[in-house]
Amino acid sequence: MSGQKPLQFVTLLGSLRKASYNGAIARALPGLAPDGVTIQPLGSVGDLPLYNADIQAEGFPTAVLAMGEAITKADGIIIVTPEYNYSIPGGLKNAIDWLSRLPAQPFAGKPTAIQSGSPGVLGGARAQYQLRQSLVFLDASVLNKPEVMVSQIMSKVDAATLELTDQVTRDFIAGQLKAFAAFARRLG
Amino acid sequence: MSGQKPLQFVTLLGSLRKASYNGAIARALPGLAPDGVTIQPLGSVGDLPLYNADIQAEGFPTAVLAMGEAITKADGIIIVTPEYNYSIPGGLKNAIDWLSRLPAQPFAGKPTAIQSGSPGVLGGARAQYQLRQSLVFLDASVLNKPEVMVSQIMSKVDAATLELTDQVTRDFIAGQLKAFAAFARRLG
Amino acid sequence: MSGQKPLQFVTLLGSLRKASYNGAIARALPGLAPDGVTIQPLGSVGDLPLYNADIQAEGFPTAVLAMGEAITKADGIIIVTPEYNYSIPGGLKNAIDWLSRLPAQPFAGKPTAIQSGSPGVLGGARAQYQLRQSLVFLDASVLNKPEVMVSQIMSKVDAATLELTDQVTRDFIAGQLKAFAAFARRLG
Amino acid sequence: MSGQKPLQFVTLLGSLRKASYNGAIARALPGLAPDGVTIQPLGSVGDLPLYNADIQAEGFPTAVLAMGEAITKADGIIIVTPEYNYSIPGGLKNAIDWLSRLPAQPFAGKPTAIQSGSPGVLGGARAQYQLRQSLVFLDASVLNKPEVMVSQIMSKVDAATLELTDQVTRDFIAGQLKAFAAFARRLG
Repeated sequence: MSGQKPLQFVTLLGSLRKASYNGAIARALPGLAPDGVTIQPLGSVGDLPLYNADIQAEGFPTAVLAMGEAITKADGIIIVTPEYNYSIPGGLKNAIDWLSRLPAQPFAGKPTAIQSGSPGVLGGARAQYQLRQSLVFLDASVLNKPEVMVSQIMSKVDAATLELTDQVTRDFIAGQLKAFAAFARRLG
Repeated sequence: MSGQKPLQFVTLLGSLRKASYNGAIARALPGLAPDGVTIQPLGSVGDLPLYNADIQAEGFPTAVLAMGEAITKADGIIIVTPEYNYSIPGGLKNAIDWLSRLPAQPFAGKPTAIQSGSPGVLGGARAQYQLRQSLVFLDASVLNKPEVMVSQIMSKVDAATLELTDQVTRDFIAGQLKAFAAFARRLG
Repeated sequence: MSGQKPLQFVTLLGSLRKASYNGAIARALPGLAPDGVTIQPLGSVGDLPLYNADIQAEGFPTAVLAMGEAITKADGIIIVTPEYNYSIPGGLKNAIDWLSRLPAQPFAGKPTAIQSGSPGVLGGARAQYQLRQSLVFLDASVLNKPEVMVSQIMSKVDAATLELTDQVTRDFIAGQLKAFAAFARRLG
Repeated sequence: MSGQKPLQFVTLLGSLRKASYNGAIARALPGLAPDGVTIQPLGSVGDLPLYNADIQAEGFPTAVLAMGEAITKADGIIIVTPEYNYSIPGGLKNAIDWLSRLPAQPFAGKPTAIQSGSPGVLGGARAQYQLRQSLVFLDASVLNKPEVMVSQIMSKVDAATLELTDQVTRDFIAGQLKAFAAFARRLG
């Protein structure tokens, strides 16, 4: 909307698989963002070593510092993740564990939205509520609704191009992005 | 007790720090086990790469296979873990994510106990209930009680020797191990 | 199966509405039980006052005592419940709160299965994991799988007769009952 | 602070026991509130019948309507509750279930703080995270920190006068109220 402050969001992807369906969701976001909102990917959670306080004592890995700075500068963060074993992937949790040690506390007060997709009917719901608990500790400002839980994701992404093609899902996600932009502006 | 089947348990440690206080708990377990129960550490969760289905497609890492076989052979598994951000460490979750993909399903029906320690008063409680949710999916047989949540762990471990010295804590953990042995024998 | 010990299960229903869809699930259970298993409803959670320690001090209400005795005598309990506000209904939680105060501890070690249905796609999943946390405290022996979460329940129950008519759902629930009977026999 | 908008908060108490320790916390709040903040109790959750959609169809009970209107008018709500069976009391959940059905949606966007006390060391922590999940559905704006979890509450309340006497606890709660007032003003 004209006159509104532009917003820049970043995405944190919980999957490392090249042909990830959740990656397809994350890649679709820039094209679904409302006017005035840009969305850029953070570095891969796969670039971080497993968290170890002994490593931290020698200095934060460059990839952790870069990820933390990008979140700090952003107007909001969108976490897009598969569900593994009724929770978030270890790789995503590991990134959060590293980020939580940064003195700048990149999640504190940061507008945060969650999206997940799964092959089954629950769409990653169980992972989302576990993630929300970590975000209480991190003092993030997490959007309540609408909740993006993409069920049967294999039927909504083109297997050849890895594009999120299902229009109902695209519209629903666009609706969350619009609500998230309003949420971030209200808190900003 | 004479005549009872000997049991062999394995421990999975959630921390990678050399001077880990939870490591001190894990190392104390063999000395706290009831007669007829031996307890051995699994390999480090730090030896596993971040889970990536593309890696899995090329074959499970040796460390995953070894960990899975050791759990499958054991009569029970004891997970000892710190709490990071109100949940389990990413490194521990990553090990669980790998293990969950093994065709042998090492956690299925496996007697499982949980222990955690933290510097604060909650002793890792929040991590334990998140972990229990993953263990539902894995179909593990998880001991309900007693729950070992070691609060103010820094006052219970000798900082120089990294031994678990607090006698009340040692006795409480020994009590859980006794209950866990009975639980494993009942299910076995 | 001939030669197997007969089992008697009881059902605890979380809804008070006369035309409850979860009530339709609960009423279908006796007809879906495997040979040798009988299933009977407990009294209504609506017959219990709100838990108040001052009432308890004067003596447990008759309905609480009756419910507790019936659970204690049963070989297992099946909790069938809608999801309210991402958790179990207050009325069901209230029954659990009363039962948890009984000296006999009717849930301790009791084989327990969970079923839920909802109009939406998640089928009450969020309520189930919250309930499981309470059941850890109560030391119940809770079946892990299969998990009965009946989505879009309005399309699976005949609105006129309130019978559970969807055959896929009936078969899935019958499968859980069979697994639950085996689970109860293994623990019994 | 002079020039700041006055705020009016309401408290919802999860316990029905006359000599409730959590009641002692709730009664202490007006005296711990920062300048410009008044805090008043809502009606008792004990005045509500168990939720039943058939009752709702005939009209909301007066006590539900009154509670909903008081929350809607307030600048924020503070939920003070014991933990029963690792979750919130059935009576408190029942009040939430009723309130959630009101067309006005009294919790939507409402600044919300949580306090709990328990005889044990965890101070009701497990109940708080379960409650937070319900508050996601209700779209409440829930304060992350500081988290008020009063452990060993019996040592912090005068058994004769039922006053919250422990000064460290009083100061900590006063700190949360100050943070909550700032939170409510930021959102208001």
